[in-house]
Amino acid sequence: MFKASFITLFPEAFPGPLGVSILERARKEGLWSLETVDLRPFGIGKHRNVDETPAGGGAGMVLRPDVAAAAIDSLDRGGRPLIYLSPRGKPLNQQLAREFAEKPGLILFCGRFEGLDERVIEGRGMMEVSLGDFVLAGGEVAAMALTEAVVRLLPGVAGNEASLSEESFETGLLEHPQYTLPREWEGRGTPEVLLSGDHKRIQEWRFNSAKALTFERRPDLYAAYSKTPEFQAPETGDEHD
Amino acid sequence: MFKASFITLFPEAFPGPLGVSILERARKEGLWSLETVDLRPFGIGKHRNVDETPAGGGAGMVLRPDVAAAAIDSLDRGGRPLIYLSPRGKPLNQQLAREFAEKPGLILFCGRFEGLDERVIEGRGMMEVSLGDFVLAGGEVAAMALTEAVVRLLPGVAGNEASLSEESFETGLLEHPQYTLPREWEGRGTPEVLLSGDHKRIQEWRFNSAKALTFERRPDLYAAYSKTPEFQAPETGDEHD
Repeated sequence: MFKASFITLFPEAFPGPLGVSILERARKEGLWSLETVDLRPFGIGKHRNVDETPAGGGAGMVLRPDVAAAAIDSLDRGGRPLIYLSPRGKPLNQQLAREFAEKPGLILFCGRFEGLDERVIEGRGMMEVSLGDFVLAGGEVAAMALTEAVVRLLPGVAGNEASLSEESFETGLLEHPQYTLPREWEGRGTPEVLLSGDHKRIQEWRFNSAKALTFERRPDLYAAYSKTPEFQAPETGDEHD
Repeated sequence: MFKASFITLFPEAFPGPLGVSILERARKEGLWSLETVDLRPFGIGKHRNVDETPAGGGAGMVLRPDVAAAAIDSLDRGGRPLIYLSPRGKPLNQQLAREFAEKPGLILFCGRFEGLDERVIEGRGMMEVSLGDFVLAGGEVAAMALTEAVVRLLPGVAGNEASLSEESFETGLLEHPQYTLPREWEGRGTPEVLLSGDHKRIQEWRFNSAKALTFERRPDLYAAYSKTPEFQAPETGDEHD
């Protein structure tokens, strides 16, 4: 069973968004498990200090390497990647989420303050992963987002495997627009083609919409996509269904 | 006071990571407030249905535009941006977080299933924001991360304004490595320069470390940075302190 262990000064932040909907259902069904490890008891002295001022001066506090290592070493790694959530890390993307979903689980170190002493990052072989080019108050919400992105890819969690393969990034494109009931709402209709029942035309419309949307909003993704075989030979060309 | 309103099918996911540490303290001090709006009571009929199958067929369910609009319209916008968290949106970055921190608050629509009917996105002028190029089970954790990135920038929340201006992305570079006690740990020392007391050399070392780290890990950020005035005339060159 896939096991996510969170090392944190704030275990009370959990499970939060990981405790609802399909993730909660999957956890109850034994498809994954969640554990929090409170960093505080590993602190130094009577006051269980976990942080000290930065060597060389400067604002804020830095998490001690010995304290962080003690918490990490209390866990059975069991082949799980040890991840430190940090804006300096490798940006999370769908490809990386898919790689993590192949592992037996994850250990997620949630930083606070000015960050973690560099030596424990090196000494324990931590992989730095970033949620994006913005700064958070702590690693907890980033660790949760990463875990949610990974756990929903585990077999049986999302329920509908077809919907996984059609969504944004899995095809290299942003997802096409969606419409549902009512057919007319506040003077806005539903694109005719979607009501035509012509599966081939619908697929073509969705594919072209996804391409147009990606081109407009994310030229970076579109440029990467334009180099793939799918771009040269659109899927909708010679299908029989 | 900055007000964050979350429209969600899962109010029980909140406050989660927003209910700890500096964000919780700031909320208690009245620097910001958090409200959840349950989408379910706005649903249709006896069963309060919020979703229907996609027009044109396909996997999953789509949130109805009328239901979403009813929830949105129940709120006082008060000049607040209405944000829909979606992988198709504008990627969140520190610049965008800073823009949001200037607003009187945020309304965050947390999607589930295959997403939201396109017409309500257009009809209510929703701004689509993405946390990154990965897919989540729902918008809740993305809305929390966005809110955390924004609220910590509000005056008085982070406590130490100096530490905000030095961190990753605020300078255009990833942050330099940090060290603290003990000075020697598991055979790993602290860089000599950080113990020298020479403030100018320390600043120089940090600046060069940040540049080297950014160059190595994020050539995209480094390329953008190399076009700024700071790159041509490093800050450490002619300072008197």
